[in-house]
Amino acid sequence: MEALDIQPRLLLGPGPSPVPYSVRRALSEPVVGHMDPQFLAIVDHIQSMLRQVFGTSNRLTLPVSGTGSAGMETAIVNFVEPGDTVIVVVAGVFGRRIVEAVEKVGGHVVCLEVPMGEAATIGDLQHLLDHHPKTRLVAVVMAETSTGVLQPLAGWAELVHDRGALLLVDAVTALGGMPVDVDRNGFDVVFSGTQKCLSAPPGLSPFTASDRALDRLDSRRASVPSWYLDLNAFRQYWGNKRVYHHTAPISMLYGLYEALRLVLREGLDARYTRHRQVAGALWAGLEAMGMELLVDPSIRLPSVTTVKIPDGVDDMRLRQHLLEQDHIEIAGGLHSLSGKIWRIGVMGHGARLSNMIELLVALRRGMADQGRQVSSGVEAAEAIYNRGNR
Amino acid sequence: MEALDIQPRLLLGPGPSPVPYSVRRALSEPVVGHMDPQFLAIVDHIQSMLRQVFGTSNRLTLPVSGTGSAGMETAIVNFVEPGDTVIVVVAGVFGRRIVEAVEKVGGHVVCLEVPMGEAATIGDLQHLLDHHPKTRLVAVVMAETSTGVLQPLAGWAELVHDRGALLLVDAVTALGGMPVDVDRNGFDVVFSGTQKCLSAPPGLSPFTASDRALDRLDSRRASVPSWYLDLNAFRQYWGNKRVYHHTAPISMLYGLYEALRLVLREGLDARYTRHRQVAGALWAGLEAMGMELLVDPSIRLPSVTTVKIPDGVDDMRLRQHLLEQDHIEIAGGLHSLSGKIWRIGVMGHGARLSNMIELLVALRRGMADQGRQVSSGVEAAEAIYNRGNR
Repeated sequence: MEALDIQPRLLLGPGPSPVPYSVRRALSEPVVGHMDPQFLAIVDHIQSMLRQVFGTSNRLTLPVSGTGSAGMETAIVNFVEPGDTVIVVVAGVFGRRIVEAVEKVGGHVVCLEVPMGEAATIGDLQHLLDHHPKTRLVAVVMAETSTGVLQPLAGWAELVHDRGALLLVDAVTALGGMPVDVDRNGFDVVFSGTQKCLSAPPGLSPFTASDRALDRLDSRRASVPSWYLDLNAFRQYWGNKRVYHHTAPISMLYGLYEALRLVLREGLDARYTRHRQVAGALWAGLEAMGMELLVDPSIRLPSVTTVKIPDGVDDMRLRQHLLEQDHIEIAGGLHSLSGKIWRIGVMGHGARLSNMIELLVALRRGMADQGRQVSSGVEAAEAIYNRGNR
Repeated sequence: MEALDIQPRLLLGPGPSPVPYSVRRALSEPVVGHMDPQFLAIVDHIQSMLRQVFGTSNRLTLPVSGTGSAGMETAIVNFVEPGDTVIVVVAGVFGRRIVEAVEKVGGHVVCLEVPMGEAATIGDLQHLLDHHPKTRLVAVVMAETSTGVLQPLAGWAELVHDRGALLLVDAVTALGGMPVDVDRNGFDVVFSGTQKCLSAPPGLSPFTASDRALDRLDSRRASVPSWYLDLNAFRQYWGNKRVYHHTAPISMLYGLYEALRLVLREGLDARYTRHRQVAGALWAGLEAMGMELLVDPSIRLPSVTTVKIPDGVDDMRLRQHLLEQDHIEIAGGLHSLSGKIWRIGVMGHGARLSNMIELLVALRRGMADQGRQVSSGVEAAEAIYNRGNR
């Protein structure tokens, strides 16, 4: 067996996003024990930095030892009990995934279904809450990676709390790329991933829960049906007591530490502005090439752009061309959007004008390879970017 | 916030073990996508190398995306259903942990309790199986990290299979340091960790399941009560289909690839011999210093040595001295063995005579610091090691 020899790619799919060199270098720092005072200090700093990025003072703020889906599962197994009524907004693949997870723990799911590419309204939610007054939890994906929709959530927490329920938010493709503002928005349970706008490798799930949520946890009728993801045990290690539960993924936490440090060094507002400006440039470029975006600008995510594949262009052939000729990764659509859209990540370290220009040029070449000539998108992208930067 | 600046430690606790430089370097290789053909080739190689180290031809052989405890949970949530009778051998903390996990999914636990420091016998098991003929699963820890006992398992699989049950084995502190021989021993479900004798960082759990176990999975009455750890979904990505389930922890898998490559380059037999010889040297050294080992030589683990703390020596003060003065980590005892034993890892890359000598010297100095003069253990350790190496 040969040693690894990886051809780098420009990662412009919906995650993993490009990982800065200093984060990769942090991964390779010497491994120490999970009870070493040096490591416990790192754990403290990670929690403090996560609180800043989440916009929360929640005591329970920590990275779950698994990918974003482990964060989702942690939310569900701890805050849903058998028989609980749970309203889940399903506007794409990641909403559907929450439905599956809730059903696995015996929750009673009420779906708020929305066509892929659209968002739910607060009126829709109110209607469902009126019909299901015993709802215990409302779960919603803030940034739907499968469609590129940013779900508006203004006023949701007040409404949900009024009915005595908790608000659970999937912020996987949001955290670090746009404000999540957990406390200001009144979110109760929020999970994310490291491989999106934070630009760390995949493998951890930043997680936070409000005191209101912890009260719910403390008053559960049944014990949490998971050993690995039981927040009662996490709390012992990530709280003040540092009681051993499972061995923390040391090296991954080094990477997260450095990634969070870079996020805060840039500054949250500057980072969000950069994401918006670069996404705007990409949108202008794609439209100048004659392509159509899936999502209305009013609910368009900065972090994932979904663009319709032009008629007559072969999806797989184009993406293979990009990967093999240009070493650029973008992704196709999932489920009903498969073959119909491309998904382009504008995330974290990768959210740079130069990357978008590289992609626009490569896309144009890839389409030419299929006999389809389109205009350049470069000038339009630059123009929009420069306008934003004035 | 400052960049990381980690003081290296000599990791001689029961995990994490010292991580070779080339494994740390592999962690920092460029991140690519989880569906990138380059990465899928790495996934293939990891599965093939894991099969060699496990000693199995099981199709379902893969690293679970979490630490060793996630592997345990994967075993339980997939192979135990509510109401199933499960015999669990409890001879330490990690057996107790399996009991908790089984109870969380509604299994009916029958404990085979053994005092800490001892092993169960096949006669004990037979007796319990006679009294619980409907037993569906027998779970046992092969290498009990909390006591340093190697549980003999000869004949167990035949007995368990005769009664129509499955044999689940925790091989966390065994894999890569001693033969696990899954197929020859007839084990059905086996999980391990990366941070022990494989000397990769913590964060993944090597896992394998026999076709007999998969038949059980296929005939479950209820669906698997976990989304993240559902083997039915894993099988799609880690089988031939490569269907996306959750984003694989790319960088950690680079590290595991390199760690497994080093294991196989050394050769399994050579590696097991090295562990035995270095452990033997440590035992001789500790005994020459007048210390007493907890476990009878017939069931003593090569990978974790448990030694009684001499009367009058302050446990915490000694370990703090080791850590701060010598940058050596060892661990104390857990639960009823807390304050009574030290646990010393002889694992993977750390299983070297030079490390043991460094420890013996530091231990002697640490005890002298507490006013307790003991003989040197170095000569005895070297003598035993050289005898084994002739």
